[in-house]
Amino acid sequence: MELEQVTHVDNVRLSDDGRAVRILDQSLLPNETVYLELSTPEALYEAIASLRVRGAPAIGIFAAYALYVLALQSEAPHYAPFLAECQRHRDYLNASRPTAVNLRHALDRMVAVAAAMPCMDVPSIQAAMKEAALAIHREDIAMCRAISEYGLSLVKAGDGILTHCNAGPLATSRYGTGLGPLFLAKERGIILHAWCDETRPLLQGARLTTYELQRAGVDCTLICDNMASLVMKEGKINACFVGCDRVARNGDTANKIGTSGVAILAKHYGIPFYVLGPSSTIDFSCPDGDHIPIEQRSGAEIKETFFAAPSALPEVKCYNPAFDVTDHSLITAIVTEKGICYPPFDESFARLFGPCWKEATP
Amino acid sequence: MELEQVTHVDNVRLSDDGRAVRILDQSLLPNETVYLELSTPEALYEAIASLRVRGAPAIGIFAAYALYVLALQSEAPHYAPFLAECQRHRDYLNASRPTAVNLRHALDRMVAVAAAMPCMDVPSIQAAMKEAALAIHREDIAMCRAISEYGLSLVKAGDGILTHCNAGPLATSRYGTGLGPLFLAKERGIILHAWCDETRPLLQGARLTTYELQRAGVDCTLICDNMASLVMKEGKINACFVGCDRVARNGDTANKIGTSGVAILAKHYGIPFYVLGPSSTIDFSCPDGDHIPIEQRSGAEIKETFFAAPSALPEVKCYNPAFDVTDHSLITAIVTEKGICYPPFDESFARLFGPCWKEATP
Repeated sequence: MELEQVTHVDNVRLSDDGRAVRILDQSLLPNETVYLELSTPEALYEAIASLRVRGAPAIGIFAAYALYVLALQSEAPHYAPFLAECQRHRDYLNASRPTAVNLRHALDRMVAVAAAMPCMDVPSIQAAMKEAALAIHREDIAMCRAISEYGLSLVKAGDGILTHCNAGPLATSRYGTGLGPLFLAKERGIILHAWCDETRPLLQGARLTTYELQRAGVDCTLICDNMASLVMKEGKINACFVGCDRVARNGDTANKIGTSGVAILAKHYGIPFYVLGPSSTIDFSCPDGDHIPIEQRSGAEIKETFFAAPSALPEVKCYNPAFDVTDHSLITAIVTEKGICYPPFDESFARLFGPCWKEATP
Repeated sequence: MELEQVTHVDNVRLSDDGRAVRILDQSLLPNETVYLELSTPEALYEAIASLRVRGAPAIGIFAAYALYVLALQSEAPHYAPFLAECQRHRDYLNASRPTAVNLRHALDRMVAVAAAMPCMDVPSIQAAMKEAALAIHREDIAMCRAISEYGLSLVKAGDGILTHCNAGPLATSRYGTGLGPLFLAKERGIILHAWCDETRPLLQGARLTTYELQRAGVDCTLICDNMASLVMKEGKINACFVGCDRVARNGDTANKIGTSGVAILAKHYGIPFYVLGPSSTIDFSCPDGDHIPIEQRSGAEIKETFFAAPSALPEVKCYNPAFDVTDHSLITAIVTEKGICYPPFDESFARLFGPCWKEATP
């Protein structure tokens, strides 16, 4: 199905022979489209560490396939040494990017599948692990689809949508989260106009978001981050859609640096600001944004990465926070696969996710 | 005087032999420090068109010296052909960048000096033109000094100052406008901390502002434009200082793209937002920001300029406005060489610039 193909960036899957993980190397986009088939522990680890595969959900799917592929190579004669081997691979892969929560979740789930089969032979456990990896992938596709449906219900044909960073198929599976409504609209013949912040310093908006949208035939325009105010003022934007890396219990949302600025501009111009993400991104143990640590990265990303020559003198200090926290008061709604949460978020979260909420509250 | 030297970027002046204009080629900064001595019409024109000399006041000073240098080469025997030659050079140089208002002002003033001397011999007219060019330069230095004094009175030792784009010595003379208070503070041993937006797409903040501040020993930190919200939230910023390209009669201010976004963030976080510029930037014939045209530039500046490889696919549309207009309601004060204007700006302008105001009002 053609549309299915164009909206589905083939970012992560098992190779055709089922013995390797096949990925689209995101670090080379948009200038080179290179697929890699990886099957050694070192190559799988490096793919995560070097951001060849990125986006928390995509990393989770990749890690599940990776653990299966490594388990398939096992020469362990029975359950106990096989499980020990799986645990070693889990710990090794998990160290590749310690902050990505989906990575650990997926690896733990894969090991739990093996651990739950003490009376079975190794080929049976391997088969169950393959099923588990495929299930993680299928679940993510379904979740992105549901988020996209809810998101699309918030806009109308002809709307202009401002996006920041990349929360599309490359970062997830099939539809994506923040970009999902745009792909779903395209499938249904509903025209939306995407305005994509380039998202300095690593340019995920320019390199990845416009790549995905352009391939899918979604009308999109690239702007520098500092142009968002003007396009909003000019009436080009009807809604903002962004993804999220961690949502606190009160709705405060950590996402790519610059997101909070977009939200403040949107509020100033009276434009709704929507956060889209799976409910697993809500951290019920975290009371508010002040408890979300902000990762600091190298100044070289600002001054050197991507540039033909450095943009500033070597001795110039840089400050390079990778994320910021958008205050819940700036967010119109948080869109999950289970429904749309409106403020006050602590109440709407409690209604939609009662048990998780109860578990985490002291 | 050492401090005088470090705060004075040697951007435009007559060459030592007085027969050429000597400039620091801004297009190569910060990676190469190249001085050029220009004396042919074509080379002088190209320096403006290619942004080797940029910043409206600096272009004005350059153009004045350029017209003098060309006049010096004249073989005209007396007034009439000499003046015609000056007028030809004026028209030629003026076409190099038709939107920079200081360019035409400076050229017209130089031609007027010549035109006012019909009974004099050519060497005397040439001498008067040299004096006029030096006067334009001296006046700009004095004006920047006055703006810097007024600006410095608005902050206190230890303050963090957010800047956007470049309104420093390279763009003007000696102190600059938006950056002037930082250099003046340095001279007086008052410590201020500059936070410099890199200012996409042409990176004037990274390439030029941090270059100037670093050389002068002013504490500065480079950030991407989308990090301004976070540094404001973290309490690092006590005031914003920006330059201006055109100020309407009601205080609406056109400046480098992204300025309006900084002003909205500043208002959200309760941080004062100051515009600094010469009173000649106030266009009394322009009622408000809606009457200021926004220059659109090539998408290549977003996708290609400065990058080692393009940041997006060739077919991706870009929107690249060079300026935006900051609404007067977002501006705490407009700082000119004649004083600080507070809202309502139409009233404070009328008080400070009564006659100009009267002239332009229908």
